[in-house]
Amino acid sequence: MGINANALLAIGASPLMSFCPEEMEEIVSISSALVVNIGCLDRHEIEGMKIAAATADRLGRPWVLDPVGAGASRIRTETSLTLIRDSHPTVIRGNASEIMCLAGQQIKSRGVDTSALSSDAVESAKALALASGAIVSVSGPVDYITDGVRVEKIGNGHPLMARITAMGCTASVVTGAFIAVGEDRLLAARNAMAVMGIAGERAAARAAGTGSMEMHFIDELSTYDPADYAKAIKI
Amino acid sequence: MGINANALLAIGASPLMSFCPEEMEEIVSISSALVVNIGCLDRHEIEGMKIAAATADRLGRPWVLDPVGAGASRIRTETSLTLIRDSHPTVIRGNASEIMCLAGQQIKSRGVDTSALSSDAVESAKALALASGAIVSVSGPVDYITDGVRVEKIGNGHPLMARITAMGCTASVVTGAFIAVGEDRLLAARNAMAVMGIAGERAAARAAGTGSMEMHFIDELSTYDPADYAKAIKI
Amino acid sequence: MGINANALLAIGASPLMSFCPEEMEEIVSISSALVVNIGCLDRHEIEGMKIAAATADRLGRPWVLDPVGAGASRIRTETSLTLIRDSHPTVIRGNASEIMCLAGQQIKSRGVDTSALSSDAVESAKALALASGAIVSVSGPVDYITDGVRVEKIGNGHPLMARITAMGCTASVVTGAFIAVGEDRLLAARNAMAVMGIAGERAAARAAGTGSMEMHFIDELSTYDPADYAKAIKI
Repeated sequence: MGINANALLAIGASPLMSFCPEEMEEIVSISSALVVNIGCLDRHEIEGMKIAAATADRLGRPWVLDPVGAGASRIRTETSLTLIRDSHPTVIRGNASEIMCLAGQQIKSRGVDTSALSSDAVESAKALALASGAIVSVSGPVDYITDGVRVEKIGNGHPLMARITAMGCTASVVTGAFIAVGEDRLLAARNAMAVMGIAGERAAARAAGTGSMEMHFIDELSTYDPADYAKAIKI
Repeated sequence: MGINANALLAIGASPLMSFCPEEMEEIVSISSALVVNIGCLDRHEIEGMKIAAATADRLGRPWVLDPVGAGASRIRTETSLTLIRDSHPTVIRGNASEIMCLAGQQIKSRGVDTSALSSDAVESAKALALASGAIVSVSGPVDYITDGVRVEKIGNGHPLMARITAMGCTASVVTGAFIAVGEDRLLAARNAMAVMGIAGERAAARAAGTGSMEMHFIDELSTYDPADYAKAIKI
Repeated sequence: MGINANALLAIGASPLMSFCPEEMEEIVSISSALVVNIGCLDRHEIEGMKIAAATADRLGRPWVLDPVGAGASRIRTETSLTLIRDSHPTVIRGNASEIMCLAGQQIKSRGVDTSALSSDAVESAKALALASGAIVSVSGPVDYITDGVRVEKIGNGHPLMARITAMGCTASVVTGAFIAVGEDRLLAARNAMAVMGIAGERAAARAAGTGSMEMHFIDELSTYDPADYAKAIKI
């Protein structure tokens, strides 16, 4: 939660985090976008997630689902599938294992970290996008972002990013901020991953380990120049 | 929670964080001060907050209410007002929007970030202080700390502080530590805001972005010299 | 939770954090080790902890209990004792106050920080190890790790470590990672404390305060060389 909020503040967004079912309608109604992260779910929080997602869907607010650990437990897989079916996320952003699981593939999950390559998940991502109507964003050494027809690629990033906790969740909240303001949502979701990857590359170049990597990463986000970053995109 | 605990450890306090209604009486009874932060509330936690506040009130322990997001949802506003009415906080510390909301003003909240200036909230702060018996501490470009009659000002701080998550909550826990030991509680609450602001200024002078800002801020708190800081107070 | 996950990722482990009773059996069954930390317990989480510990015990997975704040409240003491009695932790890792409390000594707790010296707790640690069948690891200026018969000592560490939140919890998760792969579990638990202590010493040598201390500490863990660290162990 800390790094997610700090990443959002760094790029100029204004985050509010809530677990409370009773306030979800009010909070979503004053928000430009919603991100539902099932990372630390319990029964009570699932209730809040469902209300939040349903409210976003009803009000036409863009929202991102991060299906953390889908495939690692039944409740994670089922909660993700229910949210997709009932409340139509604008973007589903996960790693290869999670996306393949939600697309109905039998994969062996090692938990929240992926054991599959993002390139293995492209066909699953396209199928999930077509079945759900969502843009699907798969992170990995190469990120793939698809609406089921177009497939955008982002080749930026650095291996150290996978050794900082909540980097995937951070990609999801940054995606949420970008789709809140971007008209072409596929492009917005793709640009979010580009910013993550470029900030990661630049942070890694100055890092002495994963602790300083995290600090430099937030520094990068808080000072990033869109024109400069646009030139650094690798596909 | 991480930055709050680290800020308290940095200044020499000994924090314990609890959500558990069953242990609140015991925990408060071994504490020198209590801080109730409604940032991530749910039904169960509200129960814990009420027990904690009531215990502090009964035992005469000073306690700080941080009404995070009051005005953004009904449950946040009502929980804050109930805690104030039933358990008499020693200090209420919030941003301008939160304080104006609790003083009964109709304001448009954007969530946990404020859309009002602290100077707009001075009259509300005085009214809330008189009505509640609490010291009210409003943070912003200038901080105002009042018991309804005296008004203390602190002009220290840096805009980067608003771009790090939980900085307001950190101001509340530092206030808690200061009122635990300071006899003049208005002065203690004011000095807490001065330490926050000066540490923020010095951290910003060395920061390359909001990530390093947070690190330098904790470094500052952990090495601050009261005599040196006293000379740096701006009003 | 952030620093715990980052410490585990730094040393090459793959953490998943869960509070959800419904998924505990599945999650533990795909894990090499379990760490139960009662730091932020509530009724619902206690249910999850019990299922997780019972599953680890049943499947023969090594698991670590961190009895945070045992002695500070009845529910913490009782939860710890119940988990020990019913589910046989492989390692119990705590500070002197916590270990002395669980061994049945009447001590005055100041909360989650210890008011006793680790050397005072050696006899308690041995007694608790013999009574429970667990390895007991007591952290402090000197760390003591015992199965009730052998007592290993680690003299590494730095006072600044006690001024960063969750350092004890981090010692527990690192212990969990080490017992997941080490055949001699007493030695694994001891080596975990050595790595913590040496990383702390090296981080402190470069730190300007407790904020940069935390960053350097994670940097150290993410780049540590076992052979180099082996030479730095103090007993």
